[in-house]
Amino acid sequence: MKLFSSVNDVQDVNALVAEAIKLKQDPFAFQHLGKNKIISLVFMNPSLRTRMSTQKAALNLGMNALVLNIDKEGWALELRDNVIMNGTTVEHIREAAAVMGEYSDIIGLRSFPGLKDREEDYSEAIFNKFVEFCKVPVVSLESATRHPLQSLADLVTITELKKKERPKVVLTWAPHIKPLPQAVPNSFAEWMCKADVDFVITHPDGYALSEEFTSGATITTNQDEALKDADFVYVKNWSAYEPYGAISNGNEDWMLTNAKLDAIAPEAKVMHCLPVRRDLELSSEILDGPKSIVVHEAGNRVWAAQAVLKQMLEAL
Amino acid sequence: MKLFSSVNDVQDVNALVAEAIKLKQDPFAFQHLGKNKIISLVFMNPSLRTRMSTQKAALNLGMNALVLNIDKEGWALELRDNVIMNGTTVEHIREAAAVMGEYSDIIGLRSFPGLKDREEDYSEAIFNKFVEFCKVPVVSLESATRHPLQSLADLVTITELKKKERPKVVLTWAPHIKPLPQAVPNSFAEWMCKADVDFVITHPDGYALSEEFTSGATITTNQDEALKDADFVYVKNWSAYEPYGAISNGNEDWMLTNAKLDAIAPEAKVMHCLPVRRDLELSSEILDGPKSIVVHEAGNRVWAAQAVLKQMLEAL
Amino acid sequence: MKLFSSVNDVQDVNALVAEAIKLKQDPFAFQHLGKNKIISLVFMNPSLRTRMSTQKAALNLGMNALVLNIDKEGWALELRDNVIMNGTTVEHIREAAAVMGEYSDIIGLRSFPGLKDREEDYSEAIFNKFVEFCKVPVVSLESATRHPLQSLADLVTITELKKKERPKVVLTWAPHIKPLPQAVPNSFAEWMCKADVDFVITHPDGYALSEEFTSGATITTNQDEALKDADFVYVKNWSAYEPYGAISNGNEDWMLTNAKLDAIAPEAKVMHCLPVRRDLELSSEILDGPKSIVVHEAGNRVWAAQAVLKQMLEAL
Repeated sequence: MKLFSSVNDVQDVNALVAEAIKLKQDPFAFQHLGKNKIISLVFMNPSLRTRMSTQKAALNLGMNALVLNIDKEGWALELRDNVIMNGTTVEHIREAAAVMGEYSDIIGLRSFPGLKDREEDYSEAIFNKFVEFCKVPVVSLESATRHPLQSLADLVTITELKKKERPKVVLTWAPHIKPLPQAVPNSFAEWMCKADVDFVITHPDGYALSEEFTSGATITTNQDEALKDADFVYVKNWSAYEPYGAISNGNEDWMLTNAKLDAIAPEAKVMHCLPVRRDLELSSEILDGPKSIVVHEAGNRVWAAQAVLKQMLEAL
Repeated sequence: MKLFSSVNDVQDVNALVAEAIKLKQDPFAFQHLGKNKIISLVFMNPSLRTRMSTQKAALNLGMNALVLNIDKEGWALELRDNVIMNGTTVEHIREAAAVMGEYSDIIGLRSFPGLKDREEDYSEAIFNKFVEFCKVPVVSLESATRHPLQSLADLVTITELKKKERPKVVLTWAPHIKPLPQAVPNSFAEWMCKADVDFVITHPDGYALSEEFTSGATITTNQDEALKDADFVYVKNWSAYEPYGAISNGNEDWMLTNAKLDAIAPEAKVMHCLPVRRDLELSSEILDGPKSIVVHEAGNRVWAAQAVLKQMLEAL
Repeated sequence: MKLFSSVNDVQDVNALVAEAIKLKQDPFAFQHLGKNKIISLVFMNPSLRTRMSTQKAALNLGMNALVLNIDKEGWALELRDNVIMNGTTVEHIREAAAVMGEYSDIIGLRSFPGLKDREEDYSEAIFNKFVEFCKVPVVSLESATRHPLQSLADLVTITELKKKERPKVVLTWAPHIKPLPQAVPNSFAEWMCKADVDFVITHPDGYALSEEFTSGATITTNQDEALKDADFVYVKNWSAYEPYGAISNGNEDWMLTNAKLDAIAPEAKVMHCLPVRRDLELSSEILDGPKSIVVHEAGNRVWAAQAVLKQMLEAL
């Protein structure tokens, strides 16, 4: 694998999930692959799970990881072309990416959307420029519109814990106080649409995701209907795709409670990519109770990253 | 060892000191213990010595260390229960600790006190919550009320350098301009009270430490009397325990000078946990002269951390 | 080697260049040298290339690297002697350097000039104090007046790519909007003056460098004349040495273009230490075209650092 930016970069999704599960059983079996190899983890935005899990995955594979929080430790990068750099930006992404590529066998990049200009965000201009200029394999650590390592970990989790061949998986919008990117729900949707699951998306009016990611899913604004007999409920807030980045008040009743799940989907396991705002996005009673698998899910981030890195190392 | 948060977590203090001294002679003898193991060093507050010495101790033992300056690289953690997270905190310590535990074999945590609410600080609420939720062994990198790796390094230093079986050790308050935590003096006191030393604490009126930590020590507000014939003088500022976090002007004459020590305790070696404010807490002439062992003491932080981590690795 | 702060610390410049080129062919041949050794990379100022390339060089040699961005992760260091530390500085460089030395086999230090007090900057007071107090070998990661790892990488690059025995190398001033240090041009000049090249410096009136670094070079304020038939053109902005740190408007026409180079120096390869401000310091058309070797040059930072660290490890 030379690029891992979306599910479309994966030849065989089931095989990648199986690889992750196998690595979880035997984490240190491929340390020869990473010997003397360097992965640089470049964060334009903060990270906890992604950074730790990818570092651990790299170490498990015998690699060394260099972490660059360039939003804090570095300087402002110029992302636009054809500008005279006489302002506050100190280095152009063309040089920065190219140089990082000189020092790295693989690069992981996190770059959030601005949520101002949909066309720019959805073109993945920054991520794609970085890929173009760094000239080494790149794994997305979350880009403007996708978070594929999260989605792979989610599918690994569902695969591990499912009790029927084709489980019902529901992605439900949840309340928040700030406009959040659509990257996690977009990405989860496009992975679920390729997985062997019965996939339903539910959200209030005004929060429809781009069809680019949801084609094949059942979509409804009736949360109760969507949740009915769900096996896995994926909880996540996102801001509107149209008008881009908008949020509206209300919809507080979209927060899941034990009572609601017990009534509609008593077998459901509850997932969330984290970080989660307790009792705003998701109730404490669920997070602290037996329905929640969010910590297990976060733990699987290691094996998702390790499966991707292993395939990248094999293709070096 | 599953937890290292105070001297009370140590079964045999003398044996732990002996282990540290032995590791100093042969630092790399136990690298098999740490192979493929990860320690995450989580800093809610800045660190120089603790971070470097614990990283080095981990590397000496064959481990990999992930460093998280979550005060700077991450986001605000919610530490209270039963609040709707609709403010500035992004993730609850319950999830954050649990997730870090998923990625770590051992976690080191630094969390300073707020110095506003004594009951809260002295309950060690944050540290204890983290321990509860992360579910892996935790080593304190300084908590609200204790700094046990520092105290162990201090006892290692005294043990190495003492010239008599039972040396006289004096903890003396020193001037400062800001309210500092009581963690270092509390911790030093409780370790010295368990060590084979003659232990005296001296401070101006108003700076008595909690009896929880000083039981067994001789305590006096007469610095000259306390220092008399001391073998080791441990210099440290702290703010008041009652009223909590208070400081008062004056007491500048509590700063040690060569003249004072030459007159009262000519054999005394001077210790300080560092960082130290020169010519405010401690005179430059002492720090630059032969009485000071502060750098040697800081160097021993490696072996203290390595002894603790070794015992934790052995119990995994 | 015990110290690498300038070309004057190098016994045999040609041998060091040859070592770097040899290490580039066989990067992992000396991992026994660095086994169980720690290099601490201490940054008082931000870094991208220097940090990554030196980390990679250390890893290639089997060492572990601890990175300290003490401008961000630590606290304010007191750099002056004979002051009562009752202000904002928390630790004196005497203690900080000594303690870092306790935890390190080698230290790399970056410390930029203040550009206010020429005598202080040019005395290299901070760098030299650090070297004095840390008591372990120190490699400069750029100091107030020099950037020797950059210059060594530059000479490696010229040596690799030159097409004649004694190439013509031109250092040309370039426009900028902020006052930048003289460290890179100073250092490049003193290395080129010791190398087997025909070395010319060109800059507008008012930007003469200190003669301490340029002795032996041809110096002219006529850029066209300087560039004539150049084999390598090193582009860099710097602020005035006299009056110290000054910049003046104008001189925008000193920015190189393809047309200018095609006319005067058609064979010239263009170098820059990076970061570079596009279309202010150097035109995009050059940076994106075949004349530019800036990324290749940045890549050589690894081998320059590795050659220096190898010699330091051999002398431990």
